[in-house]
Amino acid sequence: MQKGKASIQFEEPPIIAGMASVAGKKEGQGPLGHLIDVIEQDDMCGKDNWEAAESAIQKKAAELAMKKSGAEKRDIRYLFAGDLLGQLIATSFGIVDLEIPMFGLYGACSTMGEAMALGAMTVHGGYGDQVISMASSHFATAEKQFRFPLAYGNQRPFSSTWTVTGCGAVVIRKGGRGVARITGVTTGRIVDFGARDSMNMGAAMAPAAVHTIRQNFEDFDVDETYYDRIITGDLGEVGKKILLDMMKEEGHNLESLYMDCGIEIFDKNTQDTHAGGSGCGCSAVTLCAMILPKIQAGEWRRVLFLPTGALLSTVSFNEGQSIPGIAHGVMIEKI
Amino acid sequence: MQKGKASIQFEEPPIIAGMASVAGKKEGQGPLGHLIDVIEQDDMCGKDNWEAAESAIQKKAAELAMKKSGAEKRDIRYLFAGDLLGQLIATSFGIVDLEIPMFGLYGACSTMGEAMALGAMTVHGGYGDQVISMASSHFATAEKQFRFPLAYGNQRPFSSTWTVTGCGAVVIRKGGRGVARITGVTTGRIVDFGARDSMNMGAAMAPAAVHTIRQNFEDFDVDETYYDRIITGDLGEVGKKILLDMMKEEGHNLESLYMDCGIEIFDKNTQDTHAGGSGCGCSAVTLCAMILPKIQAGEWRRVLFLPTGALLSTVSFNEGQSIPGIAHGVMIEKI
Repeated sequence: MQKGKASIQFEEPPIIAGMASVAGKKEGQGPLGHLIDVIEQDDMCGKDNWEAAESAIQKKAAELAMKKSGAEKRDIRYLFAGDLLGQLIATSFGIVDLEIPMFGLYGACSTMGEAMALGAMTVHGGYGDQVISMASSHFATAEKQFRFPLAYGNQRPFSSTWTVTGCGAVVIRKGGRGVARITGVTTGRIVDFGARDSMNMGAAMAPAAVHTIRQNFEDFDVDETYYDRIITGDLGEVGKKILLDMMKEEGHNLESLYMDCGIEIFDKNTQDTHAGGSGCGCSAVTLCAMILPKIQAGEWRRVLFLPTGALLSTVSFNEGQSIPGIAHGVMIEKI
Repeated sequence: MQKGKASIQFEEPPIIAGMASVAGKKEGQGPLGHLIDVIEQDDMCGKDNWEAAESAIQKKAAELAMKKSGAEKRDIRYLFAGDLLGQLIATSFGIVDLEIPMFGLYGACSTMGEAMALGAMTVHGGYGDQVISMASSHFATAEKQFRFPLAYGNQRPFSSTWTVTGCGAVVIRKGGRGVARITGVTTGRIVDFGARDSMNMGAAMAPAAVHTIRQNFEDFDVDETYYDRIITGDLGEVGKKILLDMMKEEGHNLESLYMDCGIEIFDKNTQDTHAGGSGCGCSAVTLCAMILPKIQAGEWRRVLFLPTGALLSTVSFNEGQSIPGIAHGVMIEKI
């Protein structure tokens, strides 16, 4: 059960019974657009403000994930959910109508990994037969929360990423048929290399991702050959380079099997997203739209899914603090 | 194991091996002052800003809880922690040096209940032998985050509460000797009665507390006579009245066994705190300083500890949204 220093191996792996992805127009125009369940053409989703739009996206994703996995609201015992905003307002207002007991989580863009880890632990521990794990972000709510008013038309350096508008939700079930299984988790710790550039989040998160990958290898006594793919959340082009360099220094060549959701979800040549996508929704949507279907189809048999979070806040940032990172690893395998 | 709709009964109840409370000067001058482990005379804790002070308080509480329970840093498998601030910055910077795998939580002032529920589930599930559950708040960081700059000297209505500066931390262990045991949990869901007054958080949270108490009674097929005390987190004088009225309407008379940490921690006649204390630290400090010692001493044998959270955010508030509430119940008994 406990494996090494920070990991859990599930003897009876919880099943991902179904998943759903809901995203914005720009994500719909990207390389994964045809794989995403629902594309919202209006980034306001017909609501009065962006936060309410993000809430609407969360609700839609949760409801669709239940529908696709044949579960009713009353079958879901717990909800593990979070977003990027202060006090998780997108989540609070998004899931209130579902009336499901709820654990609110904050792991910055690593939240989907945290939610899946706790969801799988809960189901495997016998505390519930079915739970939902989900995370969302919205380009406009995140810019408002962390950077500049959109109306400023602020210039963005090439190291910056573009927050994904979207939500991914999975229903995790104790057993039975499903899409894939969760065989283990490696929980990240906060890693602070002193990065201070909020327009270069990849650099802030890469060391945390390296730490969790290294911990996963150590805890399970494996190396990169154990996996078909190792997929980080939103390191983007800059973070990818740092991660590959750092891993290479430790003797691990990840070139051929490494992917990053942030690089997959947008086309950097045509979509002007610079280093790639980011936000809780980036890894959550990519997981549900692309990664899980590929595992279900047998194209990949074993994936280390590793949402990465930069613990940025305007308050700590303005006080001259660094941006620590955290990454939570989830081992997903073909059934 | 699963009990009713939203509860868990632990067959082998996890043990609270030790606890620590660290609080500010004002809390030290209150009725619980002599029971709190460490009183910081300087609300800045010698740091450059309030957020760093809150981080320092978190770190001190975690270290003292480990010391008092005879655990080393390396013995603690996971940390379940949170605070009130956007992106959990008090927590991120407070616990980074502990180098413990970490689940970041946000449940507003209900966070200590959420952390203890997940901590107990983790230990009972065999995922770790020892974990820490903790939560903090700081008067000045919270005012800055949610209300007005302190320098405005803003007037506060009598329904308002005073955010506690402090942190409570417990070490939860699989078995062995300890202070008390966690026999069950009831997980709250978000309850929105449409409260819109950020200066009256008690009214926003009381319906959520009532919902979780009702759910706990239903799931375990008990009523108020099952408990020696039912103790909410920070409803204050206004929320207390609402809760007692609502429960009475349902035929439950809680008068003689109900308490609220927010009412206990300050002296309303001399400390000018109006309706009482609030913040994640309010219930966490009161738990560690007063509730657990009384259970250990046998004065109370069974307590329903119920931290209550108001999901307030300036962003949603300014957009005209209501303030939903959530409350997480933890059943704590004498060993």
